[in-house]
Amino acid sequence: MHRRFADLHRRAGWRGGADAFGAAIAVLAGDLCLAWAGQLLGQAGLDAPRRAAAQECFQRMCCEAMAGQYLDMVQQARGPGRVDRALTVARYKTAKYTIERPLHLGGAIAAATPRLLAAYSRFALPLGEAYQLRDDLLGVYGDPAVTGKSTLDDLRDGKSTVLVATAIQRATPAQRTSIDALLGCPGLDEHGAAELRAVLDATGARAAVEEMIAAKTDEALAALHTAPITAAAREALTDLAAIATGRTC
Amino acid sequence: MHRRFADLHRRAGWRGGADAFGAAIAVLAGDLCLAWAGQLLGQAGLDAPRRAAAQECFQRMCCEAMAGQYLDMVQQARGPGRVDRALTVARYKTAKYTIERPLHLGGAIAAATPRLLAAYSRFALPLGEAYQLRDDLLGVYGDPAVTGKSTLDDLRDGKSTVLVATAIQRATPAQRTSIDALLGCPGLDEHGAAELRAVLDATGARAAVEEMIAAKTDEALAALHTAPITAAAREALTDLAAIATGRTC
Repeated sequence: MHRRFADLHRRAGWRGGADAFGAAIAVLAGDLCLAWAGQLLGQAGLDAPRRAAAQECFQRMCCEAMAGQYLDMVQQARGPGRVDRALTVARYKTAKYTIERPLHLGGAIAAATPRLLAAYSRFALPLGEAYQLRDDLLGVYGDPAVTGKSTLDDLRDGKSTVLVATAIQRATPAQRTSIDALLGCPGLDEHGAAELRAVLDATGARAAVEEMIAAKTDEALAALHTAPITAAAREALTDLAAIATGRTC
Repeated sequence: MHRRFADLHRRAGWRGGADAFGAAIAVLAGDLCLAWAGQLLGQAGLDAPRRAAAQECFQRMCCEAMAGQYLDMVQQARGPGRVDRALTVARYKTAKYTIERPLHLGGAIAAATPRLLAAYSRFALPLGEAYQLRDDLLGVYGDPAVTGKSTLDDLRDGKSTVLVATAIQRATPAQRTSIDALLGCPGLDEHGAAELRAVLDATGARAAVEEMIAAKTDEALAALHTAPITAAAREALTDLAAIATGRTC
């Protein structure tokens, strides 16, 4: 979106900076989509109590997503190294927005009990964190042909993931020197990335993150056993957990 | 907001550009305030039909404000010269957001009839345009000590107002040369601004905009005569019209 409007600005020969114009229009388009999403929910034909519950859930989700984005930006600016902070970002930016609140929205629309909504949270939050951890691993060790995701971008951007924070905590002084030299280096090429991947692996961080994914997925699946849901719903959510944390997508 | 967060970034010695960080956080804070506004309306204790009507009005207002902001940005990028485009921006960015939709929101909360809402629109839209036109004049000819508003910024930024568009349409070739040389010039000082003000005045644009304000205010006040409102409400709205279009604020 921002490139398209920057191009329009340039082709038309308008006044001011084309890139700043494109960025500003793209932000505005995002705000418009947010307003439209709220409008669609209001006009979805729900009866009054369900609409009120769904709108309250939607608005909470918006606030949480913005909190998560804020934490992520601060975390990126501060630099990597704190596992707890990276996990908090994963909880607010990914787990709540991608899994917990969508389940709550469906629940609100179907007049779910508080007990069911609480069970969804116990399933969704560890699963969402596991999903983000898998995404972080795939962003470094995945197969771009399968994931459609570069394995260079996160390393070149110096993204403050749980993987990187864990590696920094476990690194020997020599490993730490390599990480500092390569991570977030704008000129990082495939050769440097391979070296950085090997160092992250050698610290034991990759294996530790795999263990965290397994533990969090187990925690999510355990929550399904006591959830007041049908066998079909349990099966669907179990499949969702496998897809969200699997090694190939 | 953006300066405060850029300062925080600089003081803390964080990674990346401090100004870009400040700008991104400020955009996010604006989005958070938008989400909070929707949340407050949802939790205001209205009964279901009034809450639904108020939320629909609020969401329309958000979409319109973003459309107005988009039109304004495109209009600024294109440059001044079209009175009709400047008036469309004034309608969407100012008249609807500042006067029409706030009246409709109050109406929705008080279960207003469609007839009353339509009367509010007939009052609010010309009044809001007149208010923007007055604001444009005060931004060039006002007394900063009274208005708290610089009379240099709009001229230095080359703001595409109805005043400027009218002046360009009426300008002689010599006047047009002066306008092109001075308007939007980043180094414009008080001396150049005084020359530019004199040229805009000499084209007759200032008087023409005063006439538009008077005509639109009359149109707004006329709408009050047939509006299904009490004498006290008519008086309050008449006072509002005087305040919004007066020469000193």
